[in-house]
Amino acid sequence: MSERIVLIGAYEAALNGVMEYQRKHPDTEAIVIYPEFNPVPEFSCDVLERYLGRGIEFSEDLRASGVDTEAKRVIIRDHASGAEGSITYDKLIFAACAAPEEFDVPGDHIARIVRVGSHVDTTRLRPMDGTTLVIGSGLNLLMTVSVLLKHKKGSIEVILQNTGHLGKPMSEDLFAMVLHHLRESGVTIHEDHTLKQIEEVGSELKVTTDKGEFTASRVINAKTSLAVSYLAQEAGFETDKVGGIIVDGQLRTNINDVYACGGCASFISDMCKKPIPGTCIKFTEHRQSTALAKALEGTKARLFNPICTYSITLGDRTVAGAGLTVDAARECGFTPMSATAIQFDRAHFMPEADLMTLELVFDAPTRRVLGIQGMSKSGEALRGRISSVSAILAKRPSIDDIANLELAYSPPFASAMDVINTVANVADNMLAGINEGISATEFEALWQERENGDSFFLDCRELGNAKPFIEAHPAHWNHIPQGEIARRLSEIPEGKKIVLMCNTGTRSYEAQVTLKHAGFNDVANVDGGMTAVKQTGVKI
Amino acid sequence: MSERIVLIGAYEAALNGVMEYQRKHPDTEAIVIYPEFNPVPEFSCDVLERYLGRGIEFSEDLRASGVDTEAKRVIIRDHASGAEGSITYDKLIFAACAAPEEFDVPGDHIARIVRVGSHVDTTRLRPMDGTTLVIGSGLNLLMTVSVLLKHKKGSIEVILQNTGHLGKPMSEDLFAMVLHHLRESGVTIHEDHTLKQIEEVGSELKVTTDKGEFTASRVINAKTSLAVSYLAQEAGFETDKVGGIIVDGQLRTNINDVYACGGCASFISDMCKKPIPGTCIKFTEHRQSTALAKALEGTKARLFNPICTYSITLGDRTVAGAGLTVDAARECGFTPMSATAIQFDRAHFMPEADLMTLELVFDAPTRRVLGIQGMSKSGEALRGRISSVSAILAKRPSIDDIANLELAYSPPFASAMDVINTVANVADNMLAGINEGISATEFEALWQERENGDSFFLDCRELGNAKPFIEAHPAHWNHIPQGEIARRLSEIPEGKKIVLMCNTGTRSYEAQVTLKHAGFNDVANVDGGMTAVKQTGVKI
Repeated sequence: MSERIVLIGAYEAALNGVMEYQRKHPDTEAIVIYPEFNPVPEFSCDVLERYLGRGIEFSEDLRASGVDTEAKRVIIRDHASGAEGSITYDKLIFAACAAPEEFDVPGDHIARIVRVGSHVDTTRLRPMDGTTLVIGSGLNLLMTVSVLLKHKKGSIEVILQNTGHLGKPMSEDLFAMVLHHLRESGVTIHEDHTLKQIEEVGSELKVTTDKGEFTASRVINAKTSLAVSYLAQEAGFETDKVGGIIVDGQLRTNINDVYACGGCASFISDMCKKPIPGTCIKFTEHRQSTALAKALEGTKARLFNPICTYSITLGDRTVAGAGLTVDAARECGFTPMSATAIQFDRAHFMPEADLMTLELVFDAPTRRVLGIQGMSKSGEALRGRISSVSAILAKRPSIDDIANLELAYSPPFASAMDVINTVANVADNMLAGINEGISATEFEALWQERENGDSFFLDCRELGNAKPFIEAHPAHWNHIPQGEIARRLSEIPEGKKIVLMCNTGTRSYEAQVTLKHAGFNDVANVDGGMTAVKQTGVKI
Repeated sequence: MSERIVLIGAYEAALNGVMEYQRKHPDTEAIVIYPEFNPVPEFSCDVLERYLGRGIEFSEDLRASGVDTEAKRVIIRDHASGAEGSITYDKLIFAACAAPEEFDVPGDHIARIVRVGSHVDTTRLRPMDGTTLVIGSGLNLLMTVSVLLKHKKGSIEVILQNTGHLGKPMSEDLFAMVLHHLRESGVTIHEDHTLKQIEEVGSELKVTTDKGEFTASRVINAKTSLAVSYLAQEAGFETDKVGGIIVDGQLRTNINDVYACGGCASFISDMCKKPIPGTCIKFTEHRQSTALAKALEGTKARLFNPICTYSITLGDRTVAGAGLTVDAARECGFTPMSATAIQFDRAHFMPEADLMTLELVFDAPTRRVLGIQGMSKSGEALRGRISSVSAILAKRPSIDDIANLELAYSPPFASAMDVINTVANVADNMLAGINEGISATEFEALWQERENGDSFFLDCRELGNAKPFIEAHPAHWNHIPQGEIARRLSEIPEGKKIVLMCNTGTRSYEAQVTLKHAGFNDVANVDGGMTAVKQTGVKI
């Protein structure tokens, strides 16, 4: 007997999942009805074409205006005639999208403001002369800037909105490196501005904040996403604080035979019994399709537990991550710490070798690894490292599991000790109290206070590297090569904070071990060394 | 109180491990003594230089000729004076190398034959005119050819030695693709030759087999490796059938305070309670160092369980793998099957998109994933996939874990359904009996028998792809696009084996689902489709 599946919205993962189900159940009827508002935001027509005539009906004129879960029917309105009606379903799938938060200022709804709520939205951005002003935060912001940088046209300005941990998809320190890289790529970034209003002035848009005025030929709202799910909320479905329809690993809502996926859904991950920030979900479309197809079958074979991986190219750098950031982990009730390592992505003698920054997030009391983020020139190399961790995250890995990770990176493609193993060893040493690291920004604070004489800054690189800094700051920049420290301990003052600096944090760590063994207690090792300092834009 | 560590051999991982230990125990004395035979094969001098003056003593003239485990001393002989003596140890580390198996034919020991028993050995090969004849098998063979291809000098001939599962580090089918690629790269490969003898003829070497004679200016023995561990065997240490000193996860031998690592050791992996083929171990040097350092501390923090990852570049292709092959898994008592997928390594519209071949090895009764191997043009992209599986292998992943793997490959870097998820879905469908795949070589056998009329060869691609084959074989090459099969079932004969062909095996799988739903039982889907056929060099 034939069965009818109704989809509200046309999120691709849902379409693919339904088609996969139809292959095994060819007599299943499937129809897409667009929601009353945002009818087709998750679609550009060229995408839609791929699905025509393949078993799913798209009713261009019908709009879903409500759901009656008792009678298992969707209330519909004919867009053309305005006639009301309804269609019954055996299974209902919410497959609508996400949209960026409102600005909540006058001018918020000017039609010309481009709203970017998902990766698909960013792909619709076209090259344009003049200034594009992006107001946003989190991954939506980075994805938008990524596309604009590819266009190599016009100029890019950003007004950064800070909205909690969604505002920074990575640690403060890594995010600082990303912002510094964007500035070096020609992007103007304004932090700590509070938006006041947006006005149309002729062909331009004028944006006013508490700190100034901006004129732009295009304004993009790239704030973090909210689910487009008002229909569900009215119909009594469980939703979370960002409006996402809460579903389980089988994409089932709290009401029988009703499923949700895509930007309108809220996924509860195993790692953290809280909704996963919707922005991550786009990178899991294929798994949502399979999970949905299996769920429609009624099997649990494919539980969907997103890990939140992402990978975004920003000019000649790629940032990528998986799992939780320190802030997100704290919000989920962990006691997180993070370790940073900066190291060549392959044997240093390989011509294409380049430094990769990795940050490992872990729960201090349990040593459980919760997430990883990084930045690198070679996107493929970075993604390989991130993926190896994201692959194992659901298995509750410990720091030791990551320290022991065996990558398929033979000598030409990894250092003797791969950066992924290094960052876990750094974490291990942090917990063992052997490696007391400070970030580049913490170093900056100490360096700015150098006149107070509380800190002893010790460069433990070879003279060649240290010379320019010794000459620039003879009174504050001290130098003993790491190999000589053991026999030159007398040159190091007691009762001061020893701040160790090298190129990437490795030799300064070895120096720290030596100093601690010699009885120095207040020794800080700058994580990532001068490389982190440079990448963060700290001036010495 | 000071402690003495004696190393027999100078395997780098051991040196690094000891130095790491010395950083925390600066008063530890460490001395390297080379074994009586193969004194420094694991070393090129430029490597040795890196370790001089860093806490380890290298006694060039002393040779270890025996071990007295009761008295905890190593019997030594002065290479120069010949004087016998001994040195006591608190801890002893076997750190010698591996060497290739003997040929066991006359001329086996001609000095000019280059012996390649490890990755380090291959790095010593220098570019050379004339013919280089490589006689070998397994990873030693591939690593050797890899280096020779990089040299772009002289010509390369290979006499393939088949020595069990070590002879083929991957499945028959993938290995066939690799050999085909090597031939296309200009390497001459002779299979099924039995070596008879090797003679010096002037400046050349003459190699005779049961099938012919070969003259070469250089002959390389790249057979699979045996451990250099005779000292240990004489001293009563437990060794395995390839001579490796058996150690546990802490690199401890069966005798107190004696450790082994590198090519002379035999590691028992968690996956398979059998020694891991030594050739793999080179890719784990950094983890062996850390494991050794921790083991010397007496902690279990870093148990060493090799997963056997490798990654080898052969001209413009990279082959990589992790875990067990089908043969190795069978030897370890599993009931293995393997699934193959060939798919673009990123969104097909990306200019640099290229097809990646992945093969997943799993235990049929338990669905446990045991290994993965693959070949691809983009080494980084392939390594990323292999690493994501190797990362999770120790956690006993199931097919579903791999099907659900969440990679940090955003749209530009992976297809909607990543090839790693696809290959797991293929495996899933195989076990569900939905996908009955045959390999390109199995297809070749059926195709050669096409005149008997038992098989119905059905190309389910669009006409453009199928046309040349229809025209070449009007009587045997049938064609119905996958999308039309459901309504053209009448054109498909009953009582015959239906052999489905498409570009990469995806649409032919969808066609198979349709046909099985329509009641056809004997339907075979060519894994990897025409791409696999081409890559294997099968002629149609």
